Amino acid sequence: MPAAPSIANSVTVRLVLPASPTAISEMTSLIERAGGVVTGLDVTGSGQTRLRVDLTMLTRDPDHADEIVATMRAVDGVEIGKVSDRTFLLHLGGKLTVESKVPIRTRDDLSLVYTPGVARVCQAIARNPEDARRLTIKRNTVAVVTDGTAVLGLGDIGPLAAMPVMEGKAALFKRFADIDAFPICLDTTDTEEIIRTVKAIAPGFAGINLEDISAPRCFEVEARLREELDIPVFHDDQHGTAIVALAALRNALRVVGKELEDVRIVMSGAGAAGTAILKLMLHAGARHVVVSDVDGVIHAGREDVRSGRFENQAWIAEHTNAEGLTGSLKDAMRGADVFLGVSAPNILDEEDVAAMADGGIVFAMANPTPEIDPEVAARHASVVATGRSDFANQINNVLVFPGVFRGLIDAASRHVTMDVLLAAAEALANVVGDEERNATYIIPSVFNPDVSTVVADAVRRTVIAHSDEEPPALPDPTARPDVPPVG
Amino acid sequence: MPAAPSIANSVTVRLVLPASPTAISEMTSLIERAGGVVTGLDVTGSGQTRLRVDLTMLTRDPDHADEIVATMRAVDGVEIGKVSDRTFLLHLGGKLTVESKVPIRTRDDLSLVYTPGVARVCQAIARNPEDARRLTIKRNTVAVVTDGTAVLGLGDIGPLAAMPVMEGKAALFKRFADIDAFPICLDTTDTEEIIRTVKAIAPGFAGINLEDISAPRCFEVEARLREELDIPVFHDDQHGTAIVALAALRNALRVVGKELEDVRIVMSGAGAAGTAILKLMLHAGARHVVVSDVDGVIHAGREDVRSGRFENQAWIAEHTNAEGLTGSLKDAMRGADVFLGVSAPNILDEEDVAAMADGGIVFAMANPTPEIDPEVAARHASVVATGRSDFANQINNVLVFPGVFRGLIDAASRHVTMDVLLAAAEALANVVGDEERNATYIIPSVFNPDVSTVVADAVRRTVIAHSDEEPPALPDPTARPDVPPVG
Repeated sequence: MPAAPSIANSVTVRLVLPASPTAISEMTSLIERAGGVVTGLDVTGSGQTRLRVDLTMLTRDPDHADEIVATMRAVDGVEIGKVSDRTFLLHLGGKLTVESKVPIRTRDDLSLVYTPGVARVCQAIARNPEDARRLTIKRNTVAVVTDGTAVLGLGDIGPLAAMPVMEGKAALFKRFADIDAFPICLDTTDTEEIIRTVKAIAPGFAGINLEDISAPRCFEVEARLREELDIPVFHDDQHGTAIVALAALRNALRVVGKELEDVRIVMSGAGAAGTAILKLMLHAGARHVVVSDVDGVIHAGREDVRSGRFENQAWIAEHTNAEGLTGSLKDAMRGADVFLGVSAPNILDEEDVAAMADGGIVFAMANPTPEIDPEVAARHASVVATGRSDFANQINNVLVFPGVFRGLIDAASRHVTMDVLLAAAEALANVVGDEERNATYIIPSVFNPDVSTVVADAVRRTVIAHSDEEPPALPDPTARPDVPPVG
Repeated sequence: MPAAPSIANSVTVRLVLPASPTAISEMTSLIERAGGVVTGLDVTGSGQTRLRVDLTMLTRDPDHADEIVATMRAVDGVEIGKVSDRTFLLHLGGKLTVESKVPIRTRDDLSLVYTPGVARVCQAIARNPEDARRLTIKRNTVAVVTDGTAVLGLGDIGPLAAMPVMEGKAALFKRFADIDAFPICLDTTDTEEIIRTVKAIAPGFAGINLEDISAPRCFEVEARLREELDIPVFHDDQHGTAIVALAALRNALRVVGKELEDVRIVMSGAGAAGTAILKLMLHAGARHVVVSDVDGVIHAGREDVRSGRFENQAWIAEHTNAEGLTGSLKDAMRGADVFLGVSAPNILDEEDVAAMADGGIVFAMANPTPEIDPEVAARHASVVATGRSDFANQINNVLVFPGVFRGLIDAASRHVTMDVLLAAAEALANVVGDEERNATYIIPSVFNPDVSTVVADAVRRTVIAHSDEEPPALPDPTARPDVPPVG
């Protein structure tokens, strides 16, 4: 399953060619024979005998780009200039900007935005701290917090190298839910220090989105912050993935005509994502789940589980595998209705999928290389999903986190609960209508304009229904802003 | 010196009036007799016998606004509806927005901004951490950090209530120096905890602007962070104030024809701002300074100084007052050339200023009420300045912090040095040309378009001149962005 040439590996090569009628077409043929895809050609200079051309092409990866450029360089009469990388170009200077919503043109503007006018706003908040949600950016701002230890598939690359991902996440918050998000990349991997830091910076934020913090520290960080903060704490790698996976599973089960309560589910992976998916599925009613990790099926009799060294594995043993199954992942696959993988590349064979029950469902979500090639899995399974954008049924957190936070913020929520996660999953599943649903469409596109508002609405209603507090008034966009009386 | 009606205390009153020819003019006369200033009238509804009007007026303060509204309410046939406060209206929802600089319209955009494309950018930074300054928002982003303990003249109002000021500050960073600044309001006042937190969040920022942290903790916080971080740390209440004060003093001395080295300077206030002004003046060459605090003139023989309990006072005693002057502030004022106040309201009398040497300079910078009414001071002093915007010669930090950070960032500076502060002060002073300078124009307006670029340029040159490292290339706005080669 080699990667196809893609926009993520697009380069622009500046080159000088002889001004002959065939020089350009010879060059593009050469590139296409080498596996590149030419997407643009701009003549940026021309003389009597020579042309200067900026040629843009898709490649498979940086090595492939290097190879193609080397081939181009070998052509007689061709000079290769600067090679620019479209992805790097787009990231130059970072991807976010902080703007003032109010103009500062005159002395009067300054008096309102800053001193002396601002003092009265400060005093109002000092008297009534809840006013910070109306009169400051706390109204709509989320911190995207990481320590850079589990970034994408790259692992522990540190806080600086994690910045481009967190900026991208913040850009997605804005694009899909009009939320102001700001990246906070922490120069510590100590659990207590992370907790202390997030608590210290929390006042200005309406919510905390934890991101790419490696297990098992992420469990402790999230649990403690949830307990000690009065704003919602969401760990996207856990909760976001769990919501999308459950939503997709709901629709996959509808496609094959089975019920969550009845199916035998085999999970591979007991990390942050796996554990969160498991907990949400159990909360949703799943009763027959078996989890496998690197040491095989997790059961109460396994030495590491009995030793209690691994809290998470002990919890899993207690809440799954009632039948006491032992052995390997492959053993567990026999007769299973559902496989959910959040583990490692290529750990399943075609026979493993063939051994599943009829109407099998395979979610091979390891990234970037799934647990099994989805095309191979589809020979035997009825529904196949992955985390990749180049196959049908992409399990993508972007479907979830913007809408979940929009709903949490609009409900002035203080906590994320299992009921909120479940409501988000049900709402997301239901975006795919009965008449649309089929084996290759169990989850909507991230660009489906309904997704984030439907998820937000479900989350907001759930928070309010389960809250003891008075629900906050929803902003009415047509109304004159509600302003406190003088004094 | 009662405050004049101002835009900072502007309110809009919705009222219903009889539709008589004089009803509106009677109402505006009433308001003006009560000391308000009507600035706008909008008829928002009309019937055969009645008018609905939104009337906007400047008032002196919230109590004054209440009084005027009560007077209006007492008029026969007038109904008062909602009273809106323009300052609060402007602050609704907060003053900042975080925007994506790159569009996310298509799947291809998503592949570049987020996964999978972003992974290569992360890897590039993991290989070469300095690339974070090119490929992330670290390029241009400053944290505005406070613990909310010394906010404006309001004191310890806490992190939530400090938000409007920090947002305003961030808005000013954008307006005057195109810097992306983000407010971080800390839920701790513990010195060590503040230091730890700022260090933990530092990776994503090009600089730290400390703000409104009370003395003496602010000294320790700033000194330790300066030592332990590799990005510049600037405490605006100290360094910003020191730069503007020195710049204004330079020009005031030029107006009266005296030299900094020769003049007798009396300072009132040994807090954060006072100490910073003192240190910068000494660095600039001042030789005859006497500092007074609540216990009078600071000298080596004072009990609290000898005890060593107050480190700051001990330092001051060691570096000032070579003549061993004792007594009160008023004693020190006899024959002084310069008074610099960053202390408390109304602590000087007219006689104190009259007792100064000829060509006296009075900077009464306590806010919002100066050490002496500037109009009274001007009867005897040749040059008078305050921190207020409603008198000539406003000592305003907005003149400084945007340009200083612009310069620090453009030079990829790691530290703020005394030479940088001095260069900024000299540059700011020189914005006022020889032909413009006079007793009421010793410092430029914050809206003078040259200020921030001139200060930035001086700072950048000073950083580069004093650096052992290769100076960073200045971005050339006309050039094609410099892009790393493939691979």
